[in-house]
Amino acid sequence: MNVFLVGAGPGDEGLITVKGLDLIKKADIIIYDDLVGKNLLKYSKEDAELIYVGKRKGKHSHKQEEINNILVEKAKDAIANNKIVVRLKGGDSFIFGRGGEEVLELKKHNIDYEMVPGITSSIAVPEVSDIPLTHRKVATSFTVVTGHEAEDKKENEKQVKLSELNANTIVILMGITNLENHVMELLKNQNRTVDTPVAIIMNGTRPDQKIIKGNLGNIVNIAKENNIAPPGIIVVGDVVNVLE
Amino acid sequence: MNVFLVGAGPGDEGLITVKGLDLIKKADIIIYDDLVGKNLLKYSKEDAELIYVGKRKGKHSHKQEEINNILVEKAKDAIANNKIVVRLKGGDSFIFGRGGEEVLELKKHNIDYEMVPGITSSIAVPEVSDIPLTHRKVATSFTVVTGHEAEDKKENEKQVKLSELNANTIVILMGITNLENHVMELLKNQNRTVDTPVAIIMNGTRPDQKIIKGNLGNIVNIAKENNIAPPGIIVVGDVVNVLE
Ligand SMILES: C[S@@+](CC[C@H](N)C(=O)[O-])C[C@H]1O[C@@H](n2cnc3c(N)ncnc32)[C@H](O)[C@@H]1O
Ligand SMILES: C[S@@+](CC[C@H](N)C(=O)[O-])C[C@H]1O[C@@H](n2cnc3c(N)ncnc32)[C@H](O)[C@@H]1O
Repeated sequence: MNVFLVGAGPGDEGLITVKGLDLIKKADIIIYDDLVGKNLLKYSKEDAELIYVGKRKGKHSHKQEEINNILVEKAKDAIANNKIVVRLKGGDSFIFGRGGEEVLELKKHNIDYEMVPGITSSIAVPEVSDIPLTHRKVATSFTVVTGHEAEDKKENEKQVKLSELNANTIVILMGITNLENHVMELLKNQNRTVDTPVAIIMNGTRPDQKIIKGNLGNIVNIAKENNIAPPGIIVVGDVVNVLE
Repeated sequence: MNVFLVGAGPGDEGLITVKGLDLIKKADIIIYDDLVGKNLLKYSKEDAELIYVGKRKGKHSHKQEEINNILVEKAKDAIANNKIVVRLKGGDSFIFGRGGEEVLELKKHNIDYEMVPGITSSIAVPEVSDIPLTHRKVATSFTVVTGHEAEDKKENEKQVKLSELNANTIVILMGITNLENHVMELLKNQNRTVDTPVAIIMNGTRPDQKIIKGNLGNIVNIAKENNIAPPGIIVVGDVVNVLE
């Protein structure tokens, strides 16, 4: 196998998988984005080609199409010259990582690949802050959802409103910027009130991690007072305080 | 730190984290259950004490209380004698792993611990079978839920019915035995029909992995024909076929 889609985990370099780290060490080409801790790239071979496809300072992000093209080109190169190419993504590639789109592109070109799952921030970031997404008698279901309004509204046709999500625990990714709207939407669900516990964890598993706790009634203010900014994870439900 | 709760991942030994494997290598005491691949224990020290707390052939499982007592006793031993104790669980400790209960027990005894997240089967098992739980235009939310009817019904007070779960993708753990009931419940939701795609993956990421695909109308029969048995993951929603 020449092409691997590898999940890098949430930031702490110990939270990549053994298989993922092995591949970083062996890779001839690594295509990576923002949320991948630069700390992982230090394990790459000295002469490995490191290609950054994340957000460019002051410029627009790389378009997905551009990334797809780079990936296909490098994958073909790898197959032709018996190299290893690693596509490295933050967390897990299939959780809001657009990994599926890159896989479809590889398939279109008949390129074989292997998925190497990663530790997703949606579970691990709450976990290291003592918030279990499930807990007996408290939460037997959890939902992970994006809080990001896609620019192309058509992409959201299938988007379920936060008010309609009934799982015991709700985890919102990319939701910090629109926190106030999300809170209002969450409150429209009859199982939630202003007293429903909320936690926000910013830069989870990293040295600059920050956590705030409150409830749907006061979390917007607490977030403002504490200068909470992306990237962050919002957790809603009784699990927030269950281990206290 | 002397006490670590480590997620072992879904079965493939390459899918434990770097930190988790390091701890297995260093541990003086490892307390583990069923779903942890025996393959990981071979990395433990020769004189490490390996304590099995899973299901006993022909007998009842260890009670959670029993496990808690062993954990606390060994943790105290570790702290007193500068040893390392690892509590190793399948997948991630906080996803239907009763990890929260063990943490509460440690807290009750003022024992410090560290959580080391693991790759949860709920995401990774579909992933290695080319099923992304999220995908642009197809799924912007997913719910993970237990299909297990707790014997003590009281524990289920908070359980949300499958019919009430509205996320685009539904992942059911421990749901194989009651598959027929789950399908009936899922069909009560107006967003799902007999044509809604379903996949079941048995023994995911292991050499004996088996996958079947169908829809809510025919999956019960397909599962019977293929002798699908636990442990397995049920995935419901359009993501099942999105990469085909
Ligand atoms: C495009 S999504 C990618 C998620 C990634 N694929 C995963 O599985 O973790 C990016 C979002 O993930 C969340 N996130 C990722 N890493 C995080 C971290 N270390 N701390 C807090 N939030 C994080 C934030 O909500 C961020 O906006
Ligand atoms: C008690 S739960 C523990 C889940 C675990 N904590 C995790 O995060 O993966 C056990 C259930 O997980 C699922 N499971 C765990 N490993 C699996 C595998 N390798 N293949 C399929 N299902 C698996 C099955 O639904 C099984 O009944």
